[in-house]
Amino acid sequence: MPQQARAQATRKSIVEGSAKVFLDVGYARTTIAQVAAASGVTKGALYFHFDSKEALARAVIEENLSATTAIGLRVLSGGYSALESLVRISAGIASELIEEPMTRAAVRLTMEDSDLQFREDVPYVEWIKTCETLVQRAVDEGSVRDDIDVQTLARFLVSAHTGVDTVSGIVADREDLLQRLQEMWTMVLPGIVPPDKHVQYLGLAHLVRQPEVGTQA
Amino acid sequence: MPQQARAQATRKSIVEGSAKVFLDVGYARTTIAQVAAASGVTKGALYFHFDSKEALARAVIEENLSATTAIGLRVLSGGYSALESLVRISAGIASELIEEPMTRAAVRLTMEDSDLQFREDVPYVEWIKTCETLVQRAVDEGSVRDDIDVQTLARFLVSAHTGVDTVSGIVADREDLLQRLQEMWTMVLPGIVPPDKHVQYLGLAHLVRQPEVGTQA
Repeated sequence: MPQQARAQATRKSIVEGSAKVFLDVGYARTTIAQVAAASGVTKGALYFHFDSKEALARAVIEENLSATTAIGLRVLSGGYSALESLVRISAGIASELIEEPMTRAAVRLTMEDSDLQFREDVPYVEWIKTCETLVQRAVDEGSVRDDIDVQTLARFLVSAHTGVDTVSGIVADREDLLQRLQEMWTMVLPGIVPPDKHVQYLGLAHLVRQPEVGTQA
Repeated sequence: MPQQARAQATRKSIVEGSAKVFLDVGYARTTIAQVAAASGVTKGALYFHFDSKEALARAVIEENLSATTAIGLRVLSGGYSALESLVRISAGIASELIEEPMTRAAVRLTMEDSDLQFREDVPYVEWIKTCETLVQRAVDEGSVRDDIDVQTLARFLVSAHTGVDTVSGIVADREDLLQRLQEMWTMVLPGIVPPDKHVQYLGLAHLVRQPEVGTQA
């Protein structure tokens, strides 16, 4: 393997190893020695790539932002209606949380945020903006009522999704997450879809539990 | 002060002091010495009341459960309709989170839960049950559609409230929490109130931002 590729592979192992440790014991109790052990590298090699625990945490959060952005882009390139895209993105993010330790670690780090001063790259802000664009398109397409404030609905959808994830995580270790998310959309859609479009759009909630949703486009 | 009253006052100071420290630095980094200093007691006095950091964390969470239960009871004894009670309880809990370090500390400890094994007294479970009782009453009173599953709606309301709190906390340090909560009810009510009752019940969302709501009955 050429040197640069080897360096990139090592860096990747370290980020994955640190995600496992952060997820397991939280930011404060994570030690560089644990991360080195979990990554299968020496502390020296680790310090060559990351100069602090905070740098490791940032790398995990950035890695996850890329993964989340990738889910969004995959769905957006699928040619779905805007409302269907919103449902598919929330389903894709939930599947990621169920399957990917990196994502769960990033969420845990974000929740423990208050001491970490990661605020300059708050994940929710970007997510809310993407959502706003889609809600505006949904209004234009007639699938969301035009008397609803676009920004308010976008923020509410992100918040509701986040709360469903949090409560499912605490109460059921996320085992019921997709079911709860489908229920969320079942509760929310009748209030935001114009009454004469209910037949056309209320069924979108059922998309959530189709395994391929969000992961393919 | 008689000896028992003095002991109770000391215990109260310690629980309040530990809430401040937990809120400030999180569970993992909290030390008994910091709690003793924040409480104005000696480490000896502290150990007389609490034998471990985990016992302190449990006391904060229990104290907060009592406060949340008290909000619920105050609202429930107010003679409001069930749907109005649901709105008032969520407003009351939000106000408590804005004003009370004890409540914020308990929420932080719950979020950091995964290592703390506080699972036997998961706060959400009780809250969802209370909500279920109120949603069933709201269905009986005709303010919530009778084709909605009571348990599902109860869990969704608790989840949505939790997410609104989380996102407001991360993005705006809870400064916009009451506004976001009003928006949540504005988004949710049209979907759950029967269409012929919209005029009567949709205005309940505005209750959230009245300062006395939830704190009095």
